[in-house]
Amino acid sequence: MQEQTPQDILIDAINAEDPDTINRALDALHPSEIADLLESLPKKDRTLIWEFIPHNDRGDVLSHAQDPVRAGLLEQMPPEEVADVTKSLDADDIADILNDLPESVVDDVLFSMDIQDRQRLASVLSYSEDSAGGLMNPDIISVRADVTLDVVSRYLRQKGQLPDQTVSLMVVDRENSYLGVLRLIDVLTKSPDATVGEFLDSGVKFPADDPAREVARVFEQRDIFSAAVVDVNNKLLGVITVDDVLDVIQEQAEQTMRNMDGLVDDDMFSPLLVSARYRALWLGINLMAAFLASYVVGRFEETIQQLVALAVLMPVVASMGGVAGSQALNITIRGLSTGQITKVNSGLLINKEVGVGILNGLTWALVVAVVAIFWFDNYALGAIIGLAMVINLIVAAYSGVVIPLFLKKIGIDPAIAGGVLLITVTDVVGFATFLGLATFYLKG
Amino acid sequence: MQEQTPQDILIDAINAEDPDTINRALDALHPSEIADLLESLPKKDRTLIWEFIPHNDRGDVLSHAQDPVRAGLLEQMPPEEVADVTKSLDADDIADILNDLPESVVDDVLFSMDIQDRQRLASVLSYSEDSAGGLMNPDIISVRADVTLDVVSRYLRQKGQLPDQTVSLMVVDRENSYLGVLRLIDVLTKSPDATVGEFLDSGVKFPADDPAREVARVFEQRDIFSAAVVDVNNKLLGVITVDDVLDVIQEQAEQTMRNMDGLVDDDMFSPLLVSARYRALWLGINLMAAFLASYVVGRFEETIQQLVALAVLMPVVASMGGVAGSQALNITIRGLSTGQITKVNSGLLINKEVGVGILNGLTWALVVAVVAIFWFDNYALGAIIGLAMVINLIVAAYSGVVIPLFLKKIGIDPAIAGGVLLITVTDVVGFATFLGLATFYLKG
Repeated sequence: MQEQTPQDILIDAINAEDPDTINRALDALHPSEIADLLESLPKKDRTLIWEFIPHNDRGDVLSHAQDPVRAGLLEQMPPEEVADVTKSLDADDIADILNDLPESVVDDVLFSMDIQDRQRLASVLSYSEDSAGGLMNPDIISVRADVTLDVVSRYLRQKGQLPDQTVSLMVVDRENSYLGVLRLIDVLTKSPDATVGEFLDSGVKFPADDPAREVARVFEQRDIFSAAVVDVNNKLLGVITVDDVLDVIQEQAEQTMRNMDGLVDDDMFSPLLVSARYRALWLGINLMAAFLASYVVGRFEETIQQLVALAVLMPVVASMGGVAGSQALNITIRGLSTGQITKVNSGLLINKEVGVGILNGLTWALVVAVVAIFWFDNYALGAIIGLAMVINLIVAAYSGVVIPLFLKKIGIDPAIAGGVLLITVTDVVGFATFLGLATFYLKG
Repeated sequence: MQEQTPQDILIDAINAEDPDTINRALDALHPSEIADLLESLPKKDRTLIWEFIPHNDRGDVLSHAQDPVRAGLLEQMPPEEVADVTKSLDADDIADILNDLPESVVDDVLFSMDIQDRQRLASVLSYSEDSAGGLMNPDIISVRADVTLDVVSRYLRQKGQLPDQTVSLMVVDRENSYLGVLRLIDVLTKSPDATVGEFLDSGVKFPADDPAREVARVFEQRDIFSAAVVDVNNKLLGVITVDDVLDVIQEQAEQTMRNMDGLVDDDMFSPLLVSARYRALWLGINLMAAFLASYVVGRFEETIQQLVALAVLMPVVASMGGVAGSQALNITIRGLSTGQITKVNSGLLINKEVGVGILNGLTWALVVAVVAIFWFDNYALGAIIGLAMVINLIVAAYSGVVIPLFLKKIGIDPAIAGGVLLITVTDVVGFATFLGLATFYLKG
């Protein structure tokens, strides 16, 4: 028998109503693992297990849970409890959690906090969740450039502790303007008599309004662990650490994949009606595309009546166009999201993709033509389907590049709308060329 | 006019054969940005620009470039040059680069290094690129548990520098067995008379054979910046830092997306024939699926002959099944990749998805039925397509969950094979139910 996962043990314990085992299973898990586990459970089990989670772990669990799961848990908590369990968290993590609450409840939660906590939260909450300001932690350790490393050392020892994720200290001037960073490594390895200014590293800073996506790109590119966040006057507001960026990167990747299927914010166990409604929209959009393709086929009813083999083979032309086009589409979406596609090289990309389309169009057109000829014992049919396939695969490759470029230009996320538009094009063009060529031949 | 990107400026400078502008443009960029830029250029421009990159930036550029681009650049470098430009890199980054070279060249490169460099590389190269051992940097700063923080401070100051990404020191015993970590923060803030042992943190360690995917999961879950890598006897081998993990996470996300379209390792500007060949395989697999669907339609030629409207409407049934199924498929693939789907809850997931399938099946079946009735003035046709859609959307939802679970069980990556299998099922079932029901009605 397979080894039981912590989830399996927990579910068995829940079903057996065995609180001891539940407590023991939870004890063995990190808060982030508990969060993952809650995500894998249906809603009623989540609520049940929540009651067993030790009080001082609850804030951590909430901060690691994904939005829909977290929102579900928060729904049933009174504001004072939210304020209480989040007390020990960093301000950026608390802000994340508060962003999932209705505005009226947020005010109640803030009201239950002491003034100091409320103030440090206010600055984070004033920025969008998806901006540098929303990611930052406003609790900063900053030093002046003109003091010696020895003074810094004594200051740190006096503080007695630093936030867990500290790798460097912020260096500011008298007016709190950001000057750069001093790495902890330098405090430890350089001469105590040297000044902070001598080892001032320019570091990386982001205006608070910078989008989280841009922050993630720079962190990844520069291999940095932390960065400063400044306002329009270069005043230091907070610090972003790489652990927050990891979450952004992971979420972006998942978001892109979900967007492609219209699975907006879909929790694995969100209520049936919620899931069904999210997805129904996407099915509806696809239905319009499908009817458009049907309409095209409908224009050729007579031709199909004459040669039913056309109806048999037409899905092949459309399907191959769809696959070839989506290959080009995804290469392009990826290039756009990494910023590798520019005005200058988009032309080159179109050329390359159309080249691939021609090559693969010719290759598979030949195969399909031969199969069609033998299957229906009809040479003309083979020629027609082969020609239709070459045309459709070229159009597919071209559209696969041009559609996302166009969507991006008019400000629509290509990952959301690209797929359905592309399939519409490849279906319509596939059916129209294949049946059109056949009509032309049969009438000719 | 839009602002020119660095890429645009560079391409213009290349075309104008203006070395000064090329040099200036490159100077303004971080090595990782140069790597990105090379990825966005066709091959001949890459080679040209490479010559302009300052010698001591080349190693960094290589280590940031993606595999196919890097392999292209390495191809034309003599082994001594590879050894030379990578000299300043961390061992894990050098290992990454060497993994892109043919084995015979790797030996030549190693031979061009000094003994010390060669030895530290050997340990990393002995592990798979996709394992904890392959990600680790073997250059470790380690201390004993029984010394005081003051001794540690003096030791560090004597060294004068630490690797850039150091956040904690490894603590080992006399036999180099891993005991835990000492955070730099503690060296700075705690009493100099305290011993390392008093602030020993158990940290996170990975056996060298652990897959990179697992390493990434733990880093993300625990919000850690570094972790130890140990051998089977708990001897310390190296350290993994979060910047390496960022690359793993990003690559995994891209890999999953590429896999779904058969775009294995596809560089945006890899040679036409290489791209075409990679993708041709995928098109070929899809073609078999498409022909299977055609074969099913072919069984109903007579029925279609009697009522051509069936040929017109049949793409709608198949297409809606495909979309509904791929929504369930992607929810399931995501759940499997995050480890949220277990033996216990997979049954719940099937129930939920089938529920969604029934709801959306009924909703859209009604719409399609009404459209069909008005379009073809045929009540029976409306009833038939409505019923076929409900059946196909339920089968699609069920298959969307079961196919990836099954693939995972038999050891095939669901992200690669799931999509084409699903479409085969939804096409075959869609055509067969719709045309089958129609045949039954027309004969009845």
